[in-house]
Amino acid sequence: MKNYKIVIQYDGTRYNGWQRQGNTKNTIQERFENVLSLMSGEKVEIYASGRTDAGVHAAGQVANFKCNTNLSELEIQNYLNHYLPSDIAVLSIEEVHDRFHSRLNAVSKTYTYRIATRKPDVFFRKYVYFSAQTPDVSKMRQASELLLGTHDFRGFSSVGRTKKSTVRTIHYIDITEKNGVIEIKINGNGFLHNMVRIICGTLYDIAINKMQISDIPKIFESNIRINAGTTLPPEGLMLTEVFY
Amino acid sequence: MKNYKIVIQYDGTRYNGWQRQGNTKNTIQERFENVLSLMSGEKVEIYASGRTDAGVHAAGQVANFKCNTNLSELEIQNYLNHYLPSDIAVLSIEEVHDRFHSRLNAVSKTYTYRIATRKPDVFFRKYVYFSAQTPDVSKMRQASELLLGTHDFRGFSSVGRTKKSTVRTIHYIDITEKNGVIEIKINGNGFLHNMVRIICGTLYDIAINKMQISDIPKIFESNIRINAGTTLPPEGLMLTEVFY
Repeated sequence: MKNYKIVIQYDGTRYNGWQRQGNTKNTIQERFENVLSLMSGEKVEIYASGRTDAGVHAAGQVANFKCNTNLSELEIQNYLNHYLPSDIAVLSIEEVHDRFHSRLNAVSKTYTYRIATRKPDVFFRKYVYFSAQTPDVSKMRQASELLLGTHDFRGFSSVGRTKKSTVRTIHYIDITEKNGVIEIKINGNGFLHNMVRIICGTLYDIAINKMQISDIPKIFESNIRINAGTTLPPEGLMLTEVFY
Repeated sequence: MKNYKIVIQYDGTRYNGWQRQGNTKNTIQERFENVLSLMSGEKVEIYASGRTDAGVHAAGQVANFKCNTNLSELEIQNYLNHYLPSDIAVLSIEEVHDRFHSRLNAVSKTYTYRIATRKPDVFFRKYVYFSAQTPDVSKMRQASELLLGTHDFRGFSSVGRTKKSTVRTIHYIDITEKNGVIEIKINGNGFLHNMVRIICGTLYDIAINKMQISDIPKIFESNIRINAGTTLPPEGLMLTEVFY
């Protein structure tokens, strides 16, 4: 069996997220597995660096799958791009070591959250969250500094009771504003369920004076989700890059 | 009555073009007139620099309308952006001289036609024409030089019998290729019906060896539409800028 690493893009608008699970229909994983199984004539499973939720987009998701095929890398890429719908695309593909795993080997990931503070560019409208209020970006930046480094982020997640570690490290949070769009770029070694959207929602709530910067240490102390801010909607979130 | 000039953007995918006409429903003009009439309490008409066909997009269409209102320019812009659907946006608005007319005063216009030669970026997929074949861009450039300047472009249009002049001037045609997308930028003093799509289709047909560069002078000589190339589909076309 050969092992392939692929870099993929998707518009998450009409999907129930990446991960095939139970009776959930219309996931991106399922779309890939259907086409790959058709291609190789046997059941193929594909694993991504992380699940993305319903409505979340990816500009550079990474996944890997194992299969037997005589097709070249380029032929596989063309086959996938031909049979996958137009809102999913394979940017690159390469055969990798048998032990490569897109999730377990990922060293860090970058997510981008976009908030439009005026009616967004019509050509990019599905990839931003449109905020009726204008957040104070300098407050966002100040607050974001308290999130850097290694912390238990359970309070900034939708993770329920778990024995798994909820400690993660955030390497940087870059916040820029251009043409009425605030971009929050977060890089870290891993993210808990809804963590990026809750972090961005907390920064947002602080920036519209619904919360205080001093609330952040309290969230870390209590580790209770309810103390953190809003979970911002999925359409503004994009998985930008995965590093190995 | 005050006269307003507005710069607007639209994703033409789901519209029957700019122009309200007869029983044609769901035009962009109609959407604007409905909101403007609601705003001012009387029937308002809006005129664009030119009609765009069904499915054609605009990044910088210009239009003007006259109405009585006490609202400021910014208030009008906000009102329109609030009530117009998310695939139409007003970028700017200014009160202008009573005699300003968006079509009659336009000096030149720039259109951009985009051809993707591999599966397009999923976030921009609705704004390109996806070509299964790879056109020879250098042939396109060579052929485009024969179109520059002032000619009777009737053969490159869907214009039927008319007494109006079909002579137009093309100032430049710039063709670039980047990340699998060929961009044809055309600036001219005016364009006949379907002229940009037929010009791009002719360049395309030459670039995939369906036509010869030497066919271009023959189109001008005969002035017959059937001698020119394909009308490329609307989704690749965008009205980029209008100059006054």
